[in-house]
Amino acid sequence: MTVTTQDHDDLPYSVFAKACPSRGTLEHVTGRWGGLTLGALYEGSLRFNELRRHVDGVSEKMLSQTLHALERDGLVHREAQPTNPPRVDYRLTPLGHQVTERLLALIHCVEGSMDQVLAAREAYDARPLP
Amino acid sequence: MTVTTQDHDDLPYSVFAKACPSRGTLEHVTGRWGGLTLGALYEGSLRFNELRRHVDGVSEKMLSQTLHALERDGLVHREAQPTNPPRVDYRLTPLGHQVTERLLALIHCVEGSMDQVLAAREAYDARPLP
Repeated sequence: MTVTTQDHDDLPYSVFAKACPSRGTLEHVTGRWGGLTLGALYEGSLRFNELRRHVDGVSEKMLSQTLHALERDGLVHREAQPTNPPRVDYRLTPLGHQVTERLLALIHCVEGSMDQVLAAREAYDARPLP
Repeated sequence: MTVTTQDHDDLPYSVFAKACPSRGTLEHVTGRWGGLTLGALYEGSLRFNELRRHVDGVSEKMLSQTLHALERDGLVHREAQPTNPPRVDYRLTPLGHQVTERLLALIHCVEGSMDQVLAAREAYDARPLP
């Protein structure tokens, strides 16, 4: 096998290994709210309440936890403005931007596949029971 | 705004909307075990027990549930061979292959970012408490 720097087998991290920390980060990125939060921030910085409106269905508590995990992983930058009342902006870091680009390619692929997915579900549910 | 067929705003589905069925499919694809199962099948078909070994840490029950959801969405094909004992192979459908390509690009991006992520976590945890 030719190993190049592009080959992911070179990497010391693998999400397939139970104990690898990359599994946790992948979960922050693709978890129920993490992915939608990153996607919402892709267009530019947003304040907490703006984010809540973009990510339909998220609770205040869950959004707050999600943002902390993404900030700790270095994917989101939190900036408190010294205004009164205080104003907090969230935006993607350069690393967060790279990761979110790949995530959005996946999201758009899934959204664009939904006609096929729904047809497959219908066929599956119509099968005679074994 | 120029709208082309490549523009995802054309799509009737959006994961940002709470009630859109694409959100459920995205969760099957990116859920804790769904993503690893798709990734493992990307190289070719596998039997149930081979899959279990590839997806480190998954239980029999969770793998079985995961495969059913992916089969119902039309991403994985299940083929029971009429042998004795019966043999069941799982492989990606063409649609599953397309989606998994995007998923693997994301996974490799996350794996390749882990040095930066771990450095960010260390800096975050070392910050003085407010």
